[in-house]
Amino acid sequence: MKIVFIGSGNLATNLGKALYRAGHEILQVYSRTAENADDFAELFECSATTDIYNIRCDADIYIFSVKDSVLERLANCVADSITDKLFVHTAGSMPMDVLPVKRRGVLYPMQTFSKRREVDFSVIPTFVEAENEDDLQLLKTLAESITESVYVLDSEKRKNLHLSAVFCCNFVNHCYRLGEKVLDGIPFSVMLPLIDETARKVHEMTPSDAQTGPAIRWDENVIENQMMMLDNKPEMKTIYEQLSKSIHNDKL
Amino acid sequence: MKIVFIGSGNLATNLGKALYRAGHEILQVYSRTAENADDFAELFECSATTDIYNIRCDADIYIFSVKDSVLERLANCVADSITDKLFVHTAGSMPMDVLPVKRRGVLYPMQTFSKRREVDFSVIPTFVEAENEDDLQLLKTLAESITESVYVLDSEKRKNLHLSAVFCCNFVNHCYRLGEKVLDGIPFSVMLPLIDETARKVHEMTPSDAQTGPAIRWDENVIENQMMMLDNKPEMKTIYEQLSKSIHNDKL
Repeated sequence: MKIVFIGSGNLATNLGKALYRAGHEILQVYSRTAENADDFAELFECSATTDIYNIRCDADIYIFSVKDSVLERLANCVADSITDKLFVHTAGSMPMDVLPVKRRGVLYPMQTFSKRREVDFSVIPTFVEAENEDDLQLLKTLAESITESVYVLDSEKRKNLHLSAVFCCNFVNHCYRLGEKVLDGIPFSVMLPLIDETARKVHEMTPSDAQTGPAIRWDENVIENQMMMLDNKPEMKTIYEQLSKSIHNDKL
Repeated sequence: MKIVFIGSGNLATNLGKALYRAGHEILQVYSRTAENADDFAELFECSATTDIYNIRCDADIYIFSVKDSVLERLANCVADSITDKLFVHTAGSMPMDVLPVKRRGVLYPMQTFSKRREVDFSVIPTFVEAENEDDLQLLKTLAESITESVYVLDSEKRKNLHLSAVFCCNFVNHCYRLGEKVLDGIPFSVMLPLIDETARKVHEMTPSDAQTGPAIRWDENVIENQMMMLDNKPEMKTIYEQLSKSIHNDKL
């Protein structure tokens, strides 16, 4: 398929790579900054623009992969001149109907993307939705050309998925960060086998069954001592208390 | 070495397996409940007792792997009759000096153990400490017979390590649990590729560099909408708010 990308961030770059490798043709990329647009264009041998009113009209599909806050505005700009093509966004928490065209859809690859790190797109669960049945089939085919896990999911359910992703990824990663902060000189790398096993365990058992540690045993002695260690870090102390109570309450 | 185990829980069972396979001789196990003691004894072809005053005196090392709250009491019971042997405990957050004998030490394998799940002990970072130099060498040798990662760490530093483990494992696992709760019928298995990538990422970059999502971008629109979705789950809503603020503050 012939594709135009609006946006050149982490998700756009990783998705672009996967589509390019699968043999799709990327015609053009729009980015607010010339440098990002040029980097992206070089990667995919396509043209670049920083003018949202200068989007080519000969693509099959327009993929909007931009910040949620500018998505609607940029889609409206493009829809000024292009009205009969399929518009798709990649945002977990935005409904499909922010796109102001009849042929619209969503392609949400649920993963944490960083530009520096290459990911294996073929195992990324990707959730698609479209306004009409033909476009849904088209989006499924497109998604299946880059990943083995394609699901049809509506905007309402996708909100649940995105909230879950915030807990399972962003909050998890922040717990790693907080764990790193208390190590006091011990290198963070010693935590990696524990981090890996914690992730592996929930492949085999539910998170509830996998839980261990002072909070699930409600070992008040350890909990009190550890909270005392956080006396000079009030924000972390609150988080420690909240999460410990939540672990304990979940068992009841 | 000839070993007596006091305790037959998750950690004792996994440590016992590793030591047994490495060719050490487990002479006896004590457990409060006959069933647990017998299960352990069968696994390691050793004798079992439920009487803490009936511990054999011919072992080289006595490994206490019991709940923190009963550790000191049980060690005192054994020390009534055995005074010249090496006592070791396996607890992350207990100081070495709760053991009431001259020859004492700690062997803390930092991992999350569940009886149902076999772990590869050879990659588990294990932290040792001993009152005297000879016993420290002995513990290092013992630990090196079952794992490639052996570190000498004193009781004070081990407290930091254990607190970090609570964040990197127990709290992380609870975030998985909370993520599962909001999925509303979508199977938890769709989250596993994201969970795995989140863990893999911090092998290559710091948790701060790895962070993504609405909180680090401080996307107020998404944050507000997601908090509204948790209106009927006040405990989760508080956790969502606390962790989002903490992610945001960490960047400043």
